[in-house]
Formats: sequence, structure tokens, C-alpha cells
Amino acid sequence: MRNTAVLLVSCPDRKGLVAAIANFLYQHDANILHADQHQDAEAGLFLMRVEWDLAGFDLGLHRFGEAFAPVAAQYELRWELKLSSVKPRMAIFVSRQDHCLADLLYRWQAGELYCEVPLVISNHPDTHWLAEAYQVPFHHLPVTRETKAEVEAAQLALLEAHRVDFVVLARYMQVLSPAFVARYPNRIINIHHSFLPAFDGARPYERAYARGVKLIGATSHYVTEVLDDGPIIEQDVTRISHRDDLADLKQKGADLEKVVLSRAVRWHIDNRVLVYGNKTVVFD
Amino acid sequence: MRNTAVLLVSCPDRKGLVAAIANFLYQHDANILHADQHQDAEAGLFLMRVEWDLAGFDLGLHRFGEAFAPVAAQYELRWELKLSSVKPRMAIFVSRQDHCLADLLYRWQAGELYCEVPLVISNHPDTHWLAEAYQVPFHHLPVTRETKAEVEAAQLALLEAHRVDFVVLARYMQVLSPAFVARYPNRIINIHHSFLPAFDGARPYERAYARGVKLIGATSHYVTEVLDDGPIIEQDVTRISHRDDLADLKQKGADLEKVVLSRAVRWHIDNRVLVYGNKTVVFD
Amino acid sequence: MRNTAVLLVSCPDRKGLVAAIANFLYQHDANILHADQHQDAEAGLFLMRVEWDLAGFDLGLHRFGEAFAPVAAQYELRWELKLSSVKPRMAIFVSRQDHCLADLLYRWQAGELYCEVPLVISNHPDTHWLAEAYQVPFHHLPVTRETKAEVEAAQLALLEAHRVDFVVLARYMQVLSPAFVARYPNRIINIHHSFLPAFDGARPYERAYARGVKLIGATSHYVTEVLDDGPIIEQDVTRISHRDDLADLKQKGADLEKVVLSRAVRWHIDNRVLVYGNKTVVFD
Amino acid sequence: MRNTAVLLVSCPDRKGLVAAIANFLYQHDANILHADQHQDAEAGLFLMRVEWDLAGFDLGLHRFGEAFAPVAAQYELRWELKLSSVKPRMAIFVSRQDHCLADLLYRWQAGELYCEVPLVISNHPDTHWLAEAYQVPFHHLPVTRETKAEVEAAQLALLEAHRVDFVVLARYMQVLSPAFVARYPNRIINIHHSFLPAFDGARPYERAYARGVKLIGATSHYVTEVLDDGPIIEQDVTRISHRDDLADLKQKGADLEKVVLSRAVRWHIDNRVLVYGNKTVVFD
Repeated sequence: MRNTAVLLVSCPDRKGLVAAIANFLYQHDANILHADQHQDAEAGLFLMRVEWDLAGFDLGLHRFGEAFAPVAAQYELRWELKLSSVKPRMAIFVSRQDHCLADLLYRWQAGELYCEVPLVISNHPDTHWLAEAYQVPFHHLPVTRETKAEVEAAQLALLEAHRVDFVVLARYMQVLSPAFVARYPNRIINIHHSFLPAFDGARPYERAYARGVKLIGATSHYVTEVLDDGPIIEQDVTRISHRDDLADLKQKGADLEKVVLSRAVRWHIDNRVLVYGNKTVVFD
Repeated sequence: MRNTAVLLVSCPDRKGLVAAIANFLYQHDANILHADQHQDAEAGLFLMRVEWDLAGFDLGLHRFGEAFAPVAAQYELRWELKLSSVKPRMAIFVSRQDHCLADLLYRWQAGELYCEVPLVISNHPDTHWLAEAYQVPFHHLPVTRETKAEVEAAQLALLEAHRVDFVVLARYMQVLSPAFVARYPNRIINIHHSFLPAFDGARPYERAYARGVKLIGATSHYVTEVLDDGPIIEQDVTRISHRDDLADLKQKGADLEKVVLSRAVRWHIDNRVLVYGNKTVVFD
Repeated sequence: MRNTAVLLVSCPDRKGLVAAIANFLYQHDANILHADQHQDAEAGLFLMRVEWDLAGFDLGLHRFGEAFAPVAAQYELRWELKLSSVKPRMAIFVSRQDHCLADLLYRWQAGELYCEVPLVISNHPDTHWLAEAYQVPFHHLPVTRETKAEVEAAQLALLEAHRVDFVVLARYMQVLSPAFVARYPNRIINIHHSFLPAFDGARPYERAYARGVKLIGATSHYVTEVLDDGPIIEQDVTRISHRDDLADLKQKGADLEKVVLSRAVRWHIDNRVLVYGNKTVVFD
Repeated sequence: MRNTAVLLVSCPDRKGLVAAIANFLYQHDANILHADQHQDAEAGLFLMRVEWDLAGFDLGLHRFGEAFAPVAAQYELRWELKLSSVKPRMAIFVSRQDHCLADLLYRWQAGELYCEVPLVISNHPDTHWLAEAYQVPFHHLPVTRETKAEVEAAQLALLEAHRVDFVVLARYMQVLSPAFVARYPNRIINIHHSFLPAFDGARPYERAYARGVKLIGATSHYVTEVLDDGPIIEQDVTRISHRDDLADLKQKGADLEKVVLSRAVRWHIDNRVLVYGNKTVVFD
């Protein structure tokens, strides 16, 4: 396990930024392991991710904010500090289709996703056995049009009770209300089974099949108020041909969905994703 | 050069079809080189491509239609017979961007595209030098809103005069009128610089950049009355990242466009593409 | 579930083959669902896969061989008949790395792999829990240099006792003896963690990392006497960069291995793979 | 055209490096446009590429070395400074196959490759017309076993006379002598028509076909004394199937070769490639 800190920064682009941040870390004897930055010339933005070894770092982390404040103020930085030793807490929402859930649980158990999974929430009982196999508590909360508001309240209460940091919609077939989304800004990750913005909304495989496309895709994005419109974290596609019927599309697509969603979740956990405007930078 | 015949068939799916066609060819001593078929269960359609060596085939091709008529009638076949020795005649339309034109001309000269290129038509003079380097006649026909109808008439006259079989829009930035399109049904091939149906219409790279997609694409399709909505022949994508600005997208996209368009053109020339409904089967 | 028959044919290429086979099926009122053929001009070989609906087929399958014998004799056909309703029986061999095992078991349970899994065999106890979660009997048979021969005998006895049709080596880190391999010709499927023939043998990721390649791969193949040299069923690659260390290669590679192996297994189960010489045809 | 400077640095990894370099640039009022770094933990190496706008940079470039010397000495830096306004001079070597040459010349003429092309050298006259179409001087220097040494001397004399900075072997089918290679260390770029290290040496497509691989590849690398063993700059692959014969492999491969070689050349020109050991870092 790594004992590192990650600093994520975004601010107006300006001369001297790299020097200021690098100097600050050097003064405290940080051994920088990775540093990556990006300038969006059009938006006039500077974005940075820097990760350093905490062994030898002479600044107690509880005092980081205070010590860093002058730099942050001078350059109008928005910043976050993350510790790689702290496992974020992930809730998984799922409906009937279980391939993404099975994939996430396997990766989590194998140590590939460095997080806690305090609970799985589903509007159907079908995936109970899977959660059980991985010894994760399973909450069955059926949703109807009438009960939707109260179910969301119950879901939020569960998330709060389990101190959940972020939510993964692993083929959860309910649209979350704006009020719910607002509680976890850029902290709800969805997988959409198309190459967005193509085929947003319902039944994307059916529509891709009808249109006669030669590739199908999957898209993982942060959830915002507008359906399927949030900042894209990752996408991928796979080739299909006229020999593939709708069932083949769904099967090939399921493999894409698993890979695309798991990458997005891993990058989120590794603090590699910075949102600006309606886009993401994924530092690699 | 191959001396083969290609039979393309589409008809209602029925028992005995393969046997009937295979028997007909066998009775005339055809040596089948490739046979491929596809059933669309949903549409109840049978589609077939069969290619045979003309050496030893005992039926003069001028008598093929007559001899094949009973089979065709019995099974309600729509069919076409193509000879691989006959080079189809391709016209290329281009505007200012010349990468697809340069690519097509090179492939044609290298023997990769087995066709004649009697002319290049452009609404700008910029690519004259390229046509000249490959010794292809170049026609500069500027288009304005006012002259569009008469320019199309002139274009059609040129196509007719040069006995053009199909038209390739190699980044031709004018929308053709329905009347023009109707003259060359499923014989006008366009390259659109996005992964359709995403970003149909104008300025796809700008919109892809604004949306923050992680892959960009290109689509080659037959032109129909509805813009960017015709049967898709080929698509492909390439990965981009936050480091790519709009100019990078266009450059990476240009490489995609060339490859996707040239594949579609080659398959069309090789009589591999069958259109049904708004889809294609590309026999490989 | 489909109630179809699949006929796999290979023979010297000759005129009239397609007609003869299609006629035979038509005479017995077969409704052909898929037919695909391939000629290898260099080898002078004809290979075919044809699948038809058994509903309406008027020939009892126990009499198929007798009825088909004249056609088979005339054209020197090697042929196999498979029924899609019969689930083949798959044994999985695994060592410590469990990602391929977990993936296969999930796909099997989800109905994606239409087979029985009577047992998992491992030289380590680590994956016992996974087999248990999917309720598959697990046999722990440790191997040392001294016990290898007798362990193979025990493995073979288990395969026989469970009437196993084919074996999948899901990252099984022992080399099987030629005698073992000879018992299951073209019926042992291995996943090798490189793009063969590059990096055959041990420690492929380490060597790929040392060589500085820009893509890593995985290869699924039938096992033959010569290590990593059998007929390739499927391969795929993924991009890496200088930012990926050895652990990243292994993680990205694991995702490839799962997908490549599961495709090969599915195609084998669906009777889509024909071996000729040291190559495969995978009918799609 | 950009008016920027690029500093490429490699040195033993040490704390304070980023701060030292960033400070130096900041003191001279550099507006950093891109900065990317890489640590190879295993090799204990630090590698960096930083690019800044020369507008506003207050240090005359003729004095850069002197001013930077203290930093370089303190951290044992190996460094190079490149100006994006200076076009490097590229010589292209080619034999009979012209697809890579045609592609490079087109990209150069289109402004995609920011370099001069003072000459094309070939051991065959076949591509003369292409060089002429792009108005690049063409030198035909036939090579036989007997004349090889003297021809290389003549080639080197030409390179010197034209002040060539780097050489691109665009399917040049002669092996260069170690003495020749030593004159242009990490400045000769080759395209090999396989996914190295698979199928190094002669006739890679024939061997790939014989092996029955499911993907073919192309590799661009710097030339070293050992054939096909130099640091890899870029690789890519494309899918093939049993339907592809050897000619199809060569055609699909040609498209790969063009794209892979042109990427490598562009990155070399853009000073994005750093060689260390037998590997490259390609800063993106």
C-alpha cells in the first residue's frame, strides 16, 4: 500500500504556478512521485495533479491547509488534498443486470479498487446472491413512481449512515432526482450503454441496431441534472457487423460497460479525475 | 487481375435458396471462390454474395439473365451481376481540405482501388495541383446559393458525359439536392467527420471538443435525402485526451477519415456492400 | 435455447461442394440459419460451417451419418455434427491468479457460456472460495516436479470420470506433458499473457516491459506439444505508455486475458472454430 | 507557427528537481505551455519535457546554456534545448514500396510535419515521380553487395552536404552498417512491418500469415546496431481474419505502417521523444 498524498489544483493560468507549488513541496522535503499538469488555453485554466511520498514529508497533514494557504491565496487555487492510505467509501446501485456489479465486486475483492464497499442498493432482489458472495450488505429498496421520493430519502439516509463518499450506478435503471444528484456533485458515476452523445436516453442498443452502426460504445460519466449529459470520464467502443443481432450487441456491449465503468471508478478512487466546465481531465 | 463474376442477391428468406443458387452455378461448371450469405431474421430477408472464377464457366454472360430467370422468379430474387474485370468509373468531389482526395488518388494509382477516375470536381481551385500530379482532369465549379441549381446541372452533365458509375464526396462541403441524390441512389459515398449519429451536421470536431468526448470518429455512408442519415458503410474511432486541442482532433480525425473512406470505396468497388432498409451488409 | 444442428466440414476444395451439401440439407427440409465457408487457396482446402433449425428437419439425427455418407465419401469430407442443445462439459484448470477463473464462472452462471462446469482443478487452494461461490466442485491437486506424472494421471482420471469434453487453462502455470495433451487434441484452450509469438514462454510482462513495447497483448490458443505454439484462436492488445510500470502492465493485461480467453471459450462451445494445419478458422 | 522553446532533460532522480527547473524558467519570465515529467523508479531516472512561449522570455537563447549551467551541474542534468521555429532537416530513404514515402511527402506538404525535406535517396528509380510531384530532389543510388560500402559513403556525403538532422527509412530494404548508424545515433527512424519483437527480420507478413495470428502490426523504432532491436517509438495493430490472404495482410499492413511511421516522425520533430536505455518516453 502506498503512503502518498495527492494534491489536485485548478486555477486561472498564470506564470509561476508550477514554480510556486514545486517550491512549496520542496521546502517541506516532499519526494514527488508524479506530477502532471494541463493548461486549457481556451478556458484560461491551469489544472495540476501532484503526488508525493509522505515518508520524509516534514509537514503534518493537519497543518497542510494553513501552510499552503498563502500559495493558494496568491494564485486563487481551488485545491483538494487526498491521502492514498484513506480508502474512500463506495456505494453501488444496481437493478437487474448484474455484469457491472459482479465486475466491480471482483475487482474490489482482488484489491484493484482501493476502497470500502459498505453497501449495495437495488430496486430488485435479483443480485442479492452476488453481494452475499462478496459479503457486502445488500439493501432492497423497490421503487415505483409513487414511492420514488421516499425511496430516495431512504437511500440518502443509508448513504449518510454509511458515510459514503461516492456512488456508482452499475446499470441502475432509475433516474435520480436533481435533489439527489445535488447531494453528491461529481461523486455519482454512471455507465451509459452507448457512445455518448449518440443514443442518450432509453434503449440505446435497440437504437444502435436500428441505425446500422458498425461500432457500439459505452460511456462512463458523472451524473448531473441533465440525463446522460454529465462530464465524460471514459468511453470505449467495439466493432460489430451485420452478423451481430441485438442479443450479440448487448453481450459485446456488456463487456465494454464493465471495462469502461471499472476504469472510471479506479481513476476516481485514485484521484486522477478533475472536472472543469462539463469536461474532465484524467491525469494518467 | 481477377477474371471473376460476383452475384449479389437479396430476397425473402426461404428454404432451398442456397441449394437453388449453388445448383445453378454448379450446372454451369462455376468454380466458386467465395460465398457468403446473411439472414436478417427480423426483416425476413436473405442476402447473398457469391463470386466465381469465369475460367471454365460455360455460360456466356450475355445469356446469364435469361438462364438465371427461372431461379430468380421462383424465389423472387433481386439480383445484380458484376464482373471484376470491369472497372467502375468514380468521380471525386472535393472542397478545400485535400487529405481524402490525396489518399484516394494515391490508392487508385497504386492499384488498391480498381476503378477509373475520369474526373475530380471541386468548388475551389485549391486541389488542382493534386489532380494534375495524378493526371486526372480537374473541373472547378464554384457554388453559391444562387448558382447551386445550375452548378448541379453542370455536375450531372459532366457525370453523364464521363459515364460515371459512382461519386465519392471526399470532404465536399456542399449539401447535394434531393434531385441530385436521386440520380445516384446508393452510389454516392460520403465521409462524415464524426461517429454518427453523434455530431451529425456542421462542425462535428468543434462539438466533440466542447462535449469532452474521449474518442473521435469518422463515418462513411451512402448519401440519401436526409443529411448524414444514409446507410452506414464503415466507421472507426481513435482515442483523444485532454491534451488534444481542437487542432489535434482535426489532425487525428483526418487520419481516420482517410482510412474509413478508402475502406468504404474499396468495398463498394469490390461489390461487397448490399443495402437493405437503411443498413448495409458488408460481405468480407 | 436454440434447437439447431451445426455441421463442420473440411475437405479438398472441389467444384460442386456447396451445391452437394446444400442439396442434401434441402432434401431433408432443413431451414438453414447460417452458412459460412472458407477456401484456403494455398492449401487447396474447403472449410464450411452450416447451422440449421431442427424444427422441420425430417432426418433423425441418429440416421444422419448413414444418410450423409454418400456425400461425405464422394467429396472426401471430414465432418462433425454438433447439436446446440447438448451442453459440452468444461473443466477449468487454474493456479493462483484468479481473474480468468472468476470471469469464466460469472459468464457461465450468466448463461453466456452454454456448457456444464463439472469441476475446477488447481495446484493451489487459493481459488477454492470462488468455485464454492458458484457451487462448482473444486479439486486441489498440488504439483511438484516429482509428483507431476502421478498428478496428471489423477487429473486425467477426474476428467474421464466427469466426462469432460474440453479443458480450459485459466492461467494454469504448469506445462502439461505431451501425453496429457494428446488425450485432448484441439480440446485444451490456453491463455498466454502476450501477443504470441512475441514473448512466448515465461514472464512475458516482465520481458515486454524490458523491451519497451507500446502495446501489450494476450493470446488464446489450443495447446499442442510445443509450448505456446498451438493454433491461435483469438488475440487482442491494449495500449500502454511509459507511465505504466510493471504492475500496471499486469493489471491492464489481466483485463485483456479475461476477454480474449472468454471469446475463445465461447467460440469453441458454439462450434465456430475449425483447426487446419496450425491455424484456426473462426466462423462468425 | 509557434515560437516556443522545448527543454528535454534526463538525470538521476532527486528531490527538488522540478522546483529547480521551474524556478529557473520563472526567473526568466517564461510562460510555460506544457510540462511533463516521468520518473522511472526502477532505473532511478528523472525525465522531463517543458515547453514555453518565447514571447516575454527574457533570456537570449545564445546565453541559455551559460545561465542554465549551475542548475544542470547541481543535478547532473543531460539536457537539450530545441526551438520550435527551427525546422529540422529530414532525409527519406526508400526502396520500391512507396506508400510510406507518399504519405510522408503528403503530410510534409500539408504542414503536418514541420521540417525540411532536402532529399530522397533510393536504391531504385521507381519513386522518382513521387519526389518530383512534391518537388523534392531525388537521388538514385543502387546498392549491390560489392558496392554497399561506397554507396553508404556517398549517402553520408549527401546527408552532410544537405545538413540533414535525421533520416527516415520509409521501407528502405537495405541494412545499414554499424558505422553508418553510429553517425546518426537515435536519429534514424525505421518502420518495421510487424509488431516487434514478433517477426523481426525478413518477410514478417509471410511469417505472420503462416503462424495464423489474428492481428498484424507495425513498429517504428530508432535504428541501432542490432537489426530491429532499437528503442521503439510507436506500434499499432489491426485485426485480420482467415478471410485475409497474404495480399490482404500486406494491404492492411501498409495502412498501419503509414500511420505508425508518420506518428513517430512527427513526435521526433516535435521533440517529444526521449531515449533512455533501450526504451523511449514519448511525452504527449
